[in-house]
Amino acid sequence: MGNDSCSIDTTIKANDPELVSKSARPEGTIVDVNGIKIGGKEIVIMAGPCAVESEEQLSKTAASVRAAGASLLRGGAFKPRTSPYSFQGLGKEGLEMLERAGTETGMPVVSEVMDTRQVETVARYVDMLQIGSRNMQNFPLLKEAGRSSLPILLKRGMMATIEEYLNAAEYLLSQGNTQVVLCERGIRTFESSTRYTLDLNAIPVLKQRTHLPVIVDPSHGTGNRSLVPAMSKASLAAGADGLLLEVHFRPEEALCDGSQSLYPEDFGMMMRDLGKIAEAIGRSIHVL
Amino acid sequence: MGNDSCSIDTTIKANDPELVSKSARPEGTIVDVNGIKIGGKEIVIMAGPCAVESEEQLSKTAASVRAAGASLLRGGAFKPRTSPYSFQGLGKEGLEMLERAGTETGMPVVSEVMDTRQVETVARYVDMLQIGSRNMQNFPLLKEAGRSSLPILLKRGMMATIEEYLNAAEYLLSQGNTQVVLCERGIRTFESSTRYTLDLNAIPVLKQRTHLPVIVDPSHGTGNRSLVPAMSKASLAAGADGLLLEVHFRPEEALCDGSQSLYPEDFGMMMRDLGKIAEAIGRSIHVL
Amino acid sequence: MGNDSCSIDTTIKANDPELVSKSARPEGTIVDVNGIKIGGKEIVIMAGPCAVESEEQLSKTAASVRAAGASLLRGGAFKPRTSPYSFQGLGKEGLEMLERAGTETGMPVVSEVMDTRQVETVARYVDMLQIGSRNMQNFPLLKEAGRSSLPILLKRGMMATIEEYLNAAEYLLSQGNTQVVLCERGIRTFESSTRYTLDLNAIPVLKQRTHLPVIVDPSHGTGNRSLVPAMSKASLAAGADGLLLEVHFRPEEALCDGSQSLYPEDFGMMMRDLGKIAEAIGRSIHVL
Amino acid sequence: MGNDSCSIDTTIKANDPELVSKSARPEGTIVDVNGIKIGGKEIVIMAGPCAVESEEQLSKTAASVRAAGASLLRGGAFKPRTSPYSFQGLGKEGLEMLERAGTETGMPVVSEVMDTRQVETVARYVDMLQIGSRNMQNFPLLKEAGRSSLPILLKRGMMATIEEYLNAAEYLLSQGNTQVVLCERGIRTFESSTRYTLDLNAIPVLKQRTHLPVIVDPSHGTGNRSLVPAMSKASLAAGADGLLLEVHFRPEEALCDGSQSLYPEDFGMMMRDLGKIAEAIGRSIHVL
Repeated sequence: MGNDSCSIDTTIKANDPELVSKSARPEGTIVDVNGIKIGGKEIVIMAGPCAVESEEQLSKTAASVRAAGASLLRGGAFKPRTSPYSFQGLGKEGLEMLERAGTETGMPVVSEVMDTRQVETVARYVDMLQIGSRNMQNFPLLKEAGRSSLPILLKRGMMATIEEYLNAAEYLLSQGNTQVVLCERGIRTFESSTRYTLDLNAIPVLKQRTHLPVIVDPSHGTGNRSLVPAMSKASLAAGADGLLLEVHFRPEEALCDGSQSLYPEDFGMMMRDLGKIAEAIGRSIHVL
Repeated sequence: MGNDSCSIDTTIKANDPELVSKSARPEGTIVDVNGIKIGGKEIVIMAGPCAVESEEQLSKTAASVRAAGASLLRGGAFKPRTSPYSFQGLGKEGLEMLERAGTETGMPVVSEVMDTRQVETVARYVDMLQIGSRNMQNFPLLKEAGRSSLPILLKRGMMATIEEYLNAAEYLLSQGNTQVVLCERGIRTFESSTRYTLDLNAIPVLKQRTHLPVIVDPSHGTGNRSLVPAMSKASLAAGADGLLLEVHFRPEEALCDGSQSLYPEDFGMMMRDLGKIAEAIGRSIHVL
Repeated sequence: MGNDSCSIDTTIKANDPELVSKSARPEGTIVDVNGIKIGGKEIVIMAGPCAVESEEQLSKTAASVRAAGASLLRGGAFKPRTSPYSFQGLGKEGLEMLERAGTETGMPVVSEVMDTRQVETVARYVDMLQIGSRNMQNFPLLKEAGRSSLPILLKRGMMATIEEYLNAAEYLLSQGNTQVVLCERGIRTFESSTRYTLDLNAIPVLKQRTHLPVIVDPSHGTGNRSLVPAMSKASLAAGADGLLLEVHFRPEEALCDGSQSLYPEDFGMMMRDLGKIAEAIGRSIHVL
Repeated sequence: MGNDSCSIDTTIKANDPELVSKSARPEGTIVDVNGIKIGGKEIVIMAGPCAVESEEQLSKTAASVRAAGASLLRGGAFKPRTSPYSFQGLGKEGLEMLERAGTETGMPVVSEVMDTRQVETVARYVDMLQIGSRNMQNFPLLKEAGRSSLPILLKRGMMATIEEYLNAAEYLLSQGNTQVVLCERGIRTFESSTRYTLDLNAIPVLKQRTHLPVIVDPSHGTGNRSLVPAMSKASLAAGADGLLLEVHFRPEEALCDGSQSLYPEDFGMMMRDLGKIAEAIGRSIHVL
């Protein structure tokens, strides 16, 4: 910043791990998820339900997000739940539904893997493996996923510093997998009016320090659907390469995180606004 | 959100204090700072140095921010500093310089007041009183400022919840002063890659809960000038009614917070980008 | 630690401000509050109601804490309250009651001052000035109190780092007042099962870095009377020089913070346990 | 608290999960680790190196902690490290060393398991399985460990609320394993003078809400050996049933966390002080 010769350059030059650091690939990495390119000029929208619940729920939600401009379909089959008595996901059956919904709509699919023993199975059904916030420092899982040939969506730990986050990504790259997308999803702070504090500062910080693409999950980050449109627009304006959004065809019946899931019609309206922000910053939303 | 009759409305309906709550004035409040209107369709940019240091520093910085599109001039004469041995501001002399710079450039001026005994004096020189983050719960100061006829810029405490913030504003309104602008400026979290964690979630949350205008200070919020453009754009996209920015004609010589102050030329470039974001959301930047 | 010649000494040697740093007075400071010595071998218990509410409430509570072994009487006359509509304290009338209760019981009294304009008045009635958590960085107040000849109880800001805390104390010492007692009272974190997170780590950290006495306020720190006995014992075991405790003769009728106020009989029982902990660490509780 | 009939009872009555909640077993659970009973009147000290590094390091450290009064030997064979390039532990070879050192000294051993695929293997060598802070919400691991017949040491996540912590323990109990010990080890806050903020408030809070034994790890909690003695004493005074401590025969040569490891002679001195605190609260330190 600044073209004065005696300027103080405040661009962050941390001693980041080798493979993820910006200097390793100053031009940036483009991650290819079955043809969808993340990290380029086009912004990629991933949307879908928090959890796969049924054939109907998934196919209706998938069709609506596809129609509104999403490029990737998300949906959890293995769900990390605070309580052992909460719905834990449909497992392999959920993965099968997800694969079918992806094929029907032409969208690549992304789903979470929580256990080293599941990596191979999940990898057979999805186009991108997601490692969730609670597993950001599950090092055996990082190593196992890093050995997979699939691209990986690595969410930031809700209590992880940027430095720890970059080191977690380094675990993946150190196993040979270079197709990693980072995702800010809210950190834990004293503020309780939002479920987490979505830390948009992480976007420009990560962009300065690493060559990996950076997306944002405002659904988990805020925990409140009424805040998602504002934070989605802000994420793009701050430089995010994409968004991960929860949409449910009937949020009031969702088995998981209904209060943060957008209604399909709200998602559609929001997509139009996001298109305008993208244009204002010289980018565009990827369309299938 | 959602036009389904059985939708779960997640819009926040907290039990907020009476005078500041959205329901007290659903149409929103427009604060008038000597003719500059904050809280309407136009976005207002306040800029200037962290501290008034000299006639030259202030007049050169003021002229440059005026030329680039700022509408209000900021500058601290009484500075809250962590150490008693740091530069504490020029005091009354600084206020005089600020008043002159405002008159010369045609910009209303805003400056911080830290002591109940200073309110009257500061009010003679400025167009808007600022109450800083460390004084957000300095209740005698809130009461004294609330009795002033000047508009007030109340910054969020770095440790304050939204609920406490609204209660602090209620102190001002309860004294009869309705001309209050709120300002998110970063909260304290475990993350150390930024000086504070600028909490943009506060923008839509405050917009749902209060009728008062909301602006953002990305300079203090990040503590790093290289992050200011991204976070400024994000603030507008999230719905902020204005920005409070630090600009210094020579940041490397600043007596206070130089690393977060923009160079005038960077400020100018950023203003052009902000104009595009404003347009994308159907607003515009106020110009003098 | 360690008598090995090649040991790594982990004792903290921060670049702390000059007057408060341990090296300025390695033998430690003893603060004398009208004959009660804080910072020596004897542990000092300060107790009383959060707020002075009435002659009866204060005199009954004072008598009971005196009987159970407290040496100083606390009681707020000017109360910093989140809401402008909450009880704000009895003001000067409360100070008069406090002075009388102190005289009757033979206990020095401590009370909070919130406004630079009140310092002189409060100082006429009390033996020790308290600066509360929300005013830890109210620099004009620190300067004004630092010019007083009374000893000062400076509470840690609920979001202040140890470094900032020591700098706040430096403000007091730089004005010539060396009689300063520090008080850990809980910091703000994500954990919500306690009102704040009482940070007992601050005790040994402060003891390594400064010569000033350190006490703890487990009443505000936890916000829950059922946790006060355990945290009081732990504070002494960690090296605190005293405790600041809320006791109310009828907590269920308290105008302020009743749920964290001890019943007199619980306070009495706790004092016996504290005596045993004090003995176990080679100290004793000061008795009048 | 309080014997007044109209007292406000502030004892915490949260809606905690069924199996771990205090009401399920008001008399408390005693966990038996190969004859060592945790949760009774006797306080149990677990000590040893952070990581097993060599036969010599382990056997010398084990002998010294045994001599000074520790009852259980700790030592990591699989280490969760922030960077993929840091020492990751000796794996199975480390477990073999640990088993031998346990046999030689007559101490049961505890070691961390990080991967669902390792549970069976680790269980063959140790007397108690440890689940680390970063895996507190690794739900597949909790389920797998819960199916083991070994007692489990479940550390609190550095970002976990008490409620989430109790739910994580519920995962273990819901699989049939009732032998679970909880361990506070520091949470992440804004304060940077300690590595984490050891949250001793968690001790009385957990004691009110669950029947499971609670111990504390002041080594990780503070990250600084000079703070360990004060925080260990405070932990016992607050009601902890035991301590988990890092001791290394040569901390300056440790491959992991040397700055928080006690020298054997410091550990010995501290044990004598801990005995006095235990006595003051009517308990004693278990000796082999």
